[in-house]
Amino acid sequence: MELPYYAVIFTSKQTSVNRDYQMAAQHLEELAQGMSGFLGIDHARADIGITISYWKTLEDIARWKAQRDHQEAQKKGKSQWYEQYRVRICKVEREYGFDR
Amino acid sequence: MELPYYAVIFTSKQTSVNRDYQMAAQHLEELAQGMSGFLGIDHARADIGITISYWKTLEDIARWKAQRDHQEAQKKGKSQWYEQYRVRICKVEREYGFDR
Repeated sequence: MELPYYAVIFTSKQTSVNRDYQMAAQHLEELAQGMSGFLGIDHARADIGITISYWKTLEDIARWKAQRDHQEAQKKGKSQWYEQYRVRICKVEREYGFDR
Repeated sequence: MELPYYAVIFTSKQTSVNRDYQMAAQHLEELAQGMSGFLGIDHARADIGITISYWKTLEDIARWKAQRDHQEAQKKGKSQWYEQYRVRICKVEREYGFDR
């Protein structure tokens, strides 16, 4: 991905494993993929869940936050899914890696 | 955590689940906790592994990258543990959350 771009780090502790959540998470990922500025998503769930999505600009992130189904999910997150969560909006300043 | 601070997003695909890796990962986490500027760490492993560590400054991150045991682990990562990895150095620009 071409620098600079932004990363949204979403970490959470779920109330319990939840089929409703899993379906919504998949739906939202597909939606995000269709949004302008979307660059990619990484997630993992173990003791805590982590989702990182990548966007071109802060404006793209704001539009994604305001997207209708995403708003709905944010409400459900607070009322049902999450014990706790934390969102961190970050600017990616350097990037490097390794491929076997 | 008080803004601004920096997040290091480390994502990886492992070659295989690895006891040696797990011991090193735990050791490194303890080491990082003793470094100046260390603010916290989040990680999860599912299909992909994600580790996010939080630091006060870019200089703290550079010192952590140069730390001897961490250097050793970086070498092992390339020679043994990882099929692929990606490190992204990010500036956290906004943060908010929810607690039940």
